[in-house]
Amino acid sequence: METWLTEKFGLSVPVAGAPMANVSGGNLTGAISAAGGLGMLGAGSAVSAEWIRTEGAVAAATGRPYGIGLMAWSMANRPEHLEAVLELRPALVSLSFGDYSQYVETLQAAGIVVATQAGTVADAREAIAAGVDVIVARGAEAGGHGRNAIATLPLLQAILDLTELPVLAAGGISGPRGLAAVLAAGAAGAWIGTAFLTCAEALTPEPIRRRLLEADETDTVYGTVFDAASRAGWPDEFGGRALRNPFYDRWEGHESALKSDDAAHEEYLTAVRAADSTASSLYAGQGVGALTTQPTAAEALATFATYTTYLQAAQP
Amino acid sequence: METWLTEKFGLSVPVAGAPMANVSGGNLTGAISAAGGLGMLGAGSAVSAEWIRTEGAVAAATGRPYGIGLMAWSMANRPEHLEAVLELRPALVSLSFGDYSQYVETLQAAGIVVATQAGTVADAREAIAAGVDVIVARGAEAGGHGRNAIATLPLLQAILDLTELPVLAAGGISGPRGLAAVLAAGAAGAWIGTAFLTCAEALTPEPIRRRLLEADETDTVYGTVFDAASRAGWPDEFGGRALRNPFYDRWEGHESALKSDDAAHEEYLTAVRAADSTASSLYAGQGVGALTTQPTAAEALATFATYTTYLQAAQP
Ligand SMILES: Cc1cc2nc3c(=O)[nH]c(=O)nc-3n(C[C@H](O)[C@H](O)[C@H](O)COP(=O)(O)O)c2cc1C
Ligand SMILES: Cc1cc2nc3c(=O)[nH]c(=O)nc-3n(C[C@H](O)[C@H](O)[C@H](O)COP(=O)(O)O)c2cc1C
Repeated sequence: METWLTEKFGLSVPVAGAPMANVSGGNLTGAISAAGGLGMLGAGSAVSAEWIRTEGAVAAATGRPYGIGLMAWSMANRPEHLEAVLELRPALVSLSFGDYSQYVETLQAAGIVVATQAGTVADAREAIAAGVDVIVARGAEAGGHGRNAIATLPLLQAILDLTELPVLAAGGISGPRGLAAVLAAGAAGAWIGTAFLTCAEALTPEPIRRRLLEADETDTVYGTVFDAASRAGWPDEFGGRALRNPFYDRWEGHESALKSDDAAHEEYLTAVRAADSTASSLYAGQGVGALTTQPTAAEALATFATYTTYLQAAQP
Repeated sequence: METWLTEKFGLSVPVAGAPMANVSGGNLTGAISAAGGLGMLGAGSAVSAEWIRTEGAVAAATGRPYGIGLMAWSMANRPEHLEAVLELRPALVSLSFGDYSQYVETLQAAGIVVATQAGTVADAREAIAAGVDVIVARGAEAGGHGRNAIATLPLLQAILDLTELPVLAAGGISGPRGLAAVLAAGAAGAWIGTAFLTCAEALTPEPIRRRLLEADETDTVYGTVFDAASRAGWPDEFGGRALRNPFYDRWEGHESALKSDDAAHEEYLTAVRAADSTASSLYAGQGVGALTTQPTAAEALATFATYTTYLQAAQP
């Protein structure tokens, strides 16, 4: 099936691999792009410009288009992120979670397609006003940071009815049935994170892979506990969806105390470094229950590519 | 498009009108069935067996198949509900929210198709074990009571991958795009509530219609405030999704105090009787933002019937 997404970037599957900080480095990004999707580098607020350059070069080495996701709320303090991205000139840049409007034209002037993730219809209206090229309708079931407001299915319908811009769907698209669904609704493709978390090429450490493979669809929680512990600077309006663990349970409801608790901050950082799943953040969406193997990105994408059989079976 | 749902009940549109207590009486149920969907009577725990008989007769008068939704948690105390239903012999009965397994065979022996709403994969496994004929995958964005666990899109994929039984999708299906989506995923149809709330034939009182028409997709909340106030007997595991209002805001977080507050109980009952939208429960799902008119049920169903154009546009 041809959509705006496949035509714009010459893809064989209408799937963008969501940018995922600490998960989608150059290897996963490049592997998704090489397999006919649009891989995206997840540049968290903490990475260096050097990291972006190095990992971007790895992704670019495939010779296929790829994207980079920047954290809008951290861009004012990290001008070097934007500089590195402008040097790399990836095919697409996502500016999400915070005020990004001032950067849209600069990127577009460099020939880069600009996307943002919208969690409400109001977010989508702002994206239209800011002049983005494509809107990602990101539902509350999605993994990682974002809003916990509206689920993917009602949000996608509302945004598609709002605008003529291309719209990608994100959140809870765990297999080819979900991809067929969002395409049938009218999306130009899917923006998929959780389903790639256990891919061979992902940066996900081994102990966290094990937790992800065990988890079922009810094991995620949404909140700001890990942001209070990390002190990375996330605005409160964007919590994160992650697997519940003992650290989360201990601090849920005590986020303000956690923000100023130095011992807990150290405990959290140590757990992240050690990939200790009892206290590290384990970002994942409600589609996590569908993760049962550790495929290559090409294998994962081949599974998504079977969406056509579902669309064919649903012919009126 | 032909699916299990359309073939089983001879429908022209693969849509079941969800049973909605205080909303879908005989008129709405009959109107949906007459227009080619499967209307369903919403028998709340508080209605009399006489109400079920009278309203069921109104629905049956169309000569088309229709359904009845019973509250599983209240059936042990209301044996007369099951008796009335067995007399009416509707085409389908939904037993949702509580333990219903003991009633499945009795209904099936009377030639009635049995459905239940599942909010998790575990619920779906129980439904299979109980021998139901069709499972409704009901996501957290749905209006009215149920679980707030998993959104429709990931839940539907997980349940479709679990079972060969027919599966209907519920929650956030606000228009033909959403109907096309769930059919493409592999659902046998949609189970739709919120989109019929402002239909001409619905029991929804005028002041509540106005609130529903004004609301946007971010205006719903999920919780047990209204159940604590109503004392209807809802088990805590099934909260409800409703529009936020001053009564909800006042009592959110104080549900246990509310349970024993007689004045608040009276205030709530008075508000319900007066259809006072500031204190009455206003059950609705996240699709409420799409409600902008007060169509007849036939007009609403005709809009849903345009799902075929979305499926045709998504041909691989
Ligand atoms: C581990 C993880 C890390 C993420 N990091 C980022 C990020 O760095 N930038 C970003 O824009 N979105 C990030 N997201 C959100 C994704 O872009 C996307 O919204 C989400 O993965 C889609 O939902 P799904 O996980 O259900 O597929 C992350 C998601 C996950 C699961
Ligand atoms: C006002 C209202 C009343 C409801 N009453 C019932 C009911 O009596 N029995 C039942 O099984 N479900 C009831 N539900 C839930 C519906 O069966 C269904 O799960 C839901 O409406 C589907 O999601 P949607 O509202 O987003 O379409 C009710 C829903 C609403 C909005």
